[in-house]
Amino acid sequence: MADSLLDVVGIGNAVVDVIAQAQDKFLDDNGLTKGTMVLIDLEEAEALYAKMGPTIECSGGSAANTLAGLASLGGTAAFIGKVRDDDLGGIFRHDIRAVGVEYDTAAAVDGPATARCLVLVTPDAQRTMQTYLGACAELSPRDIDPELIERAKVTYLEGYLWDRPEAKKAFKKAAGIAHEAGNKVALNLSDPLCVDRHRTEFRELIGNHVDILFANETEIVSLCEVSGFDAALQEVRGYCDVVVLTRSEKGSVVLTDSEIHILDAEPVDKVVDTTGAGDLYAAGFLFGLTRGCDIPTCGRLAGKAAAETSAAIESLARRLGSVEGGMVTAAGLAGRIAALEKDIEALRRAAPGGAPIPCESTGGARCPARAPAPRLSG
Amino acid sequence: MADSLLDVVGIGNAVVDVIAQAQDKFLDDNGLTKGTMVLIDLEEAEALYAKMGPTIECSGGSAANTLAGLASLGGTAAFIGKVRDDDLGGIFRHDIRAVGVEYDTAAAVDGPATARCLVLVTPDAQRTMQTYLGACAELSPRDIDPELIERAKVTYLEGYLWDRPEAKKAFKKAAGIAHEAGNKVALNLSDPLCVDRHRTEFRELIGNHVDILFANETEIVSLCEVSGFDAALQEVRGYCDVVVLTRSEKGSVVLTDSEIHILDAEPVDKVVDTTGAGDLYAAGFLFGLTRGCDIPTCGRLAGKAAAETSAAIESLARRLGSVEGGMVTAAGLAGRIAALEKDIEALRRAAPGGAPIPCESTGGARCPARAPAPRLSG
Repeated sequence: MADSLLDVVGIGNAVVDVIAQAQDKFLDDNGLTKGTMVLIDLEEAEALYAKMGPTIECSGGSAANTLAGLASLGGTAAFIGKVRDDDLGGIFRHDIRAVGVEYDTAAAVDGPATARCLVLVTPDAQRTMQTYLGACAELSPRDIDPELIERAKVTYLEGYLWDRPEAKKAFKKAAGIAHEAGNKVALNLSDPLCVDRHRTEFRELIGNHVDILFANETEIVSLCEVSGFDAALQEVRGYCDVVVLTRSEKGSVVLTDSEIHILDAEPVDKVVDTTGAGDLYAAGFLFGLTRGCDIPTCGRLAGKAAAETSAAIESLARRLGSVEGGMVTAAGLAGRIAALEKDIEALRRAAPGGAPIPCESTGGARCPARAPAPRLSG
Repeated sequence: MADSLLDVVGIGNAVVDVIAQAQDKFLDDNGLTKGTMVLIDLEEAEALYAKMGPTIECSGGSAANTLAGLASLGGTAAFIGKVRDDDLGGIFRHDIRAVGVEYDTAAAVDGPATARCLVLVTPDAQRTMQTYLGACAELSPRDIDPELIERAKVTYLEGYLWDRPEAKKAFKKAAGIAHEAGNKVALNLSDPLCVDRHRTEFRELIGNHVDILFANETEIVSLCEVSGFDAALQEVRGYCDVVVLTRSEKGSVVLTDSEIHILDAEPVDKVVDTTGAGDLYAAGFLFGLTRGCDIPTCGRLAGKAAAETSAAIESLARRLGSVEGGMVTAAGLAGRIAALEKDIEALRRAAPGGAPIPCESTGGARCPARAPAPRLSG
């Protein structure tokens, strides 16, 4: 079925998470800011790893987790991302294929090792992440298989890619191919620090190349350089076909050219870790969208996926500092959403490619960058 | 402190666990017997791995887990075991050192890859294990550092070592050095299938080279080739200084030349996985023994360690099929035994080497192999 239609092809960093428990003092002693993701070089990665407690390894990466979640729900997905031909690269390849995602990007045969994200889980269950991008930096336009992009209704890109020049070119090549084929391009801003690093470029990109934007509250406020969520909302309307803004326990807001939906969060006892939740929110949303669901249904699927992830992580975190992670969480997604079992079954039966994406087609004419923000009624 | 006294030096297989969830049908389809550990070759390992779901990697190995638990409780420990100079070998070395265990065995620079144990966790939380021993097979007498053995009150050996001829020689060399230095030798039978494979040799070994024997009910019944636990008990008395027999929810029985203790299990809601529990039972027992505790106290520490492990694994298993594992479990041991916090603190303050081991010293004259079994009173 190598030439069958796909719901989503994702392009992102191919990362293995290396997870250890740590005390707050450890973060302080090592100058780390709790809850953030920062990029580190090999020397820093080795120095930090040497100080960490015993670890658990688990394949991850933001877009890769989203695709794993999508596949777990019954969607069809492929991934493009670079590993080295080392043990960790082999583990990543095994895991993403094992969850049902097509993955054929050639491994680098020399150069930096497979990327790893050193995750420190403090007793409050917050995750502090230090990422060595390694082989991910080698992703280039040559790794973008045009046929794969043409087969997918949505090409999904993670903001983290913007940290490397060659990966950025690969990203733009993929967006061009997708639009020529009449498909959609989605971007997840990934991380507020990532937005800080690339604000101007992201604005140009979103205005000219992106149809579906995922961002959380901090990211969208940073992107728009405004003081709060409502101000960002006014700015961002009209940026692209669909803008999906997540706000943790406050739920999410979804904008299209003609609609706005304010969706309450699914109840969770206590949200303590929204990292994996964001990845799986996108999985739920894209699964709904590519199967022809209306926007509120997409949001409901997404919220449920995120809530179940938070709950799973929280239960674990209380017990042992959360050794759950990445694709293992994603792979268990469908089983956890028992309440939606019937809906998901029906959506699984809907063939990929069989239903139109219910966001307004712009026929290639996307909104200009930084368009004068249309005001919401009232 | 490289030349300081040690509580325990362990010799065992250096293994990275590769853990995935699986359905019963998967075991059936692949001809696997639930709950067992069997050895497989590289080809079988690769074929099975390719069929497994996304995995979590976690350093493990029976003796290595025991030492990690001992170090977590506050004991001093060193490990001897062979990895390859690959990614997984680096992960194992990091993890065992991170939990505070000395580990300096040179990595193999060629030959088979680092050992891995493919663990399939079924919905009933049973673990079915297929081990590719890889670089462990390269462990040889050259890897036994005499100084390390001389520094340790107890040299602890895992039965699994018996699966490789060179490792067996290393084992005997270590036992010889330990006894010449007036130290004790402990053996854990590891696994009933392992006992089946090496019954005659194990009997000779235990009779002539072992002071402290750990076995569970199935293993000791297999070793003695009798019909049940009580018959094994009659056989085994006098085999060596201390015989520690574990019986899951039935607790444990500890025999010395002059004493017998029947210790009830610590209450656990439901014991569903005794794999890691056995390793950590030994950790608790050896921690007490090397700090000069009497036998009932050693048993209480051991039982508590095992129970906490079972409880932790069970809670997780119910939620996501248990991604807890190996050294991460072991490293969290002390924190879980809140009830014993005070006792453990006191024992931590007792310097290694400062207290005699309270089992009857045989002054080098150990019981003969298969000694006529002294009957228990009555």
